[in-house]
Amino acid sequence: MSLLAVGTVAFDQIETPFGKRDRALGGSATYLTLAARFMTDDINLVAVVGSDFPEEYVDVLRTRNINLDGLEHRTDQKTFAWGGRYHYDLNNRDTLFTDLNVLSDFNPTLPEHYTGARIVCLGNLDPGVQASVMDQTPSADLVLCDTMNFWIEHTPDALEALLGRVDCLVINDSEARELADEPNLIVAARKIRERGPEILIIKKGEHGALMFAGDTVFSVPAYPLEDIQDPTGAGDAFMGGFAGYLSGCSSITVDALKHALVYGSVVASFTVEKFGPEGLYDLTRAQILDRIDAFRDLTTIPLESVG
Amino acid sequence: MSLLAVGTVAFDQIETPFGKRDRALGGSATYLTLAARFMTDDINLVAVVGSDFPEEYVDVLRTRNINLDGLEHRTDQKTFAWGGRYHYDLNNRDTLFTDLNVLSDFNPTLPEHYTGARIVCLGNLDPGVQASVMDQTPSADLVLCDTMNFWIEHTPDALEALLGRVDCLVINDSEARELADEPNLIVAARKIRERGPEILIIKKGEHGALMFAGDTVFSVPAYPLEDIQDPTGAGDAFMGGFAGYLSGCSSITVDALKHALVYGSVVASFTVEKFGPEGLYDLTRAQILDRIDAFRDLTTIPLESVG
Repeated sequence: MSLLAVGTVAFDQIETPFGKRDRALGGSATYLTLAARFMTDDINLVAVVGSDFPEEYVDVLRTRNINLDGLEHRTDQKTFAWGGRYHYDLNNRDTLFTDLNVLSDFNPTLPEHYTGARIVCLGNLDPGVQASVMDQTPSADLVLCDTMNFWIEHTPDALEALLGRVDCLVINDSEARELADEPNLIVAARKIRERGPEILIIKKGEHGALMFAGDTVFSVPAYPLEDIQDPTGAGDAFMGGFAGYLSGCSSITVDALKHALVYGSVVASFTVEKFGPEGLYDLTRAQILDRIDAFRDLTTIPLESVG
Repeated sequence: MSLLAVGTVAFDQIETPFGKRDRALGGSATYLTLAARFMTDDINLVAVVGSDFPEEYVDVLRTRNINLDGLEHRTDQKTFAWGGRYHYDLNNRDTLFTDLNVLSDFNPTLPEHYTGARIVCLGNLDPGVQASVMDQTPSADLVLCDTMNFWIEHTPDALEALLGRVDCLVINDSEARELADEPNLIVAARKIRERGPEILIIKKGEHGALMFAGDTVFSVPAYPLEDIQDPTGAGDAFMGGFAGYLSGCSSITVDALKHALVYGSVVASFTVEKFGPEGLYDLTRAQILDRIDAFRDLTTIPLESVG
């Protein structure tokens, strides 16, 4: 199935205890598409960049078979830029700066051949922009949506309207607690799903992820890694891997959703092993499948073994 | 296999957003033994109480087939008492008071018929006391040990010596990070195991638990509960359930350890649904097995479902 991902393509300044990058390729649409490309050739990106965006970064995406007809180039503005510094434990970070630039009035009109997309990933953006992309993709079988505390706090009405329309919300645990105003994650999940999304995925960083779909609750751990270089983009890579797996399925069953969750977790684990999106550049489907086997060993409960 | 658990038997004052208890039955040995009793009849408790300890609390344990020959009664001192208040999110608590009383010079001499115990659970106590119990149980096949930040900070040498002797350390994630002086849990686990314990279990509260044994890493989630009344004793119930499962096994294989981890997680989930140890009072093995089936649904990765 064709997949469309809208989000940011950005310059990231990243500082972790293990290194630093300046003006690295970043942004949610970058991670979403690079992570989603392993099960389908029909990946379509929607984002905006400025006059300062280098052709070499465009090539990173183009050479990996990502359709860039929806990447708008502005000649009169600069590319969205973000800087963050991770603490020693990698679980917390400080935002150093956020320069919206081209993003301040981003409101994409999709290319005609994008509008039949079957799986739509709404990366973290103004809920109004996310809704506009939904309006332009009426054939979607599955709409996935990310958001963040900024939109929960500043545009609650637009976000609420969007929640009523999307099929799958993908947020982290602190966002879920804030969105539901409820500390118990299981209660929070029920309350959020009552407001719209049939499927809810709660990302928990080093603790993995929880998925709620129908009457199913499904848990995946994070892949145990000794060497994490940079957590940037892990959540987007997770969502991209999840959606990308489903784009290779003929129908979206509960088993497919469970498998997609493992797939997303595995793709995210490769992402954090290198800086920025570099861990996704040369990743292969074979490497992903090998790590899925390791996931089975990590989680499969043996049969009763009392003897 | 026979199981011995040493720890505290205490009065707990508990305040959660859902209620309050004063002078409730508590203590690590209470939870350990109540949680361990489902797979063997040979459960032996070692602890100390004071003159104020009511016979009705003794009966709670005695009527559940726990051998209390190792429960020392002091006539000249009061029972150990602890008070804690949980925050709104139940993940944090303030200790209101800790009255050591009888615990201040607790150093048990085991009844002769205890010394052949095959599985020994060292509840959180002074590492010197834990070592003394190990000295008195030379036939043990498996020694499990809990500790806490107080001992990590105040008796590091005694704790280090103990780590070199125990088979299985059971601690929570913040304790693991502190003990290893390392934020990455996977690295912390390797460093701790290099100091002694062949098996390491890291408890993560609402995020479940991780077990390291040989080359195996195994992850279990927490059972998803909407209604948590009181987290007190969940960690001890987890360790008791884990050890209790193994006491019913003819040999301690990796599969038995994995199954024991699920068993411990399930017993802990029943514990937090009621105040204090009340959730363990009438719990049955059938209820535990039912919830283990639910755990399989929660974690089993389906076969590749791309169609």
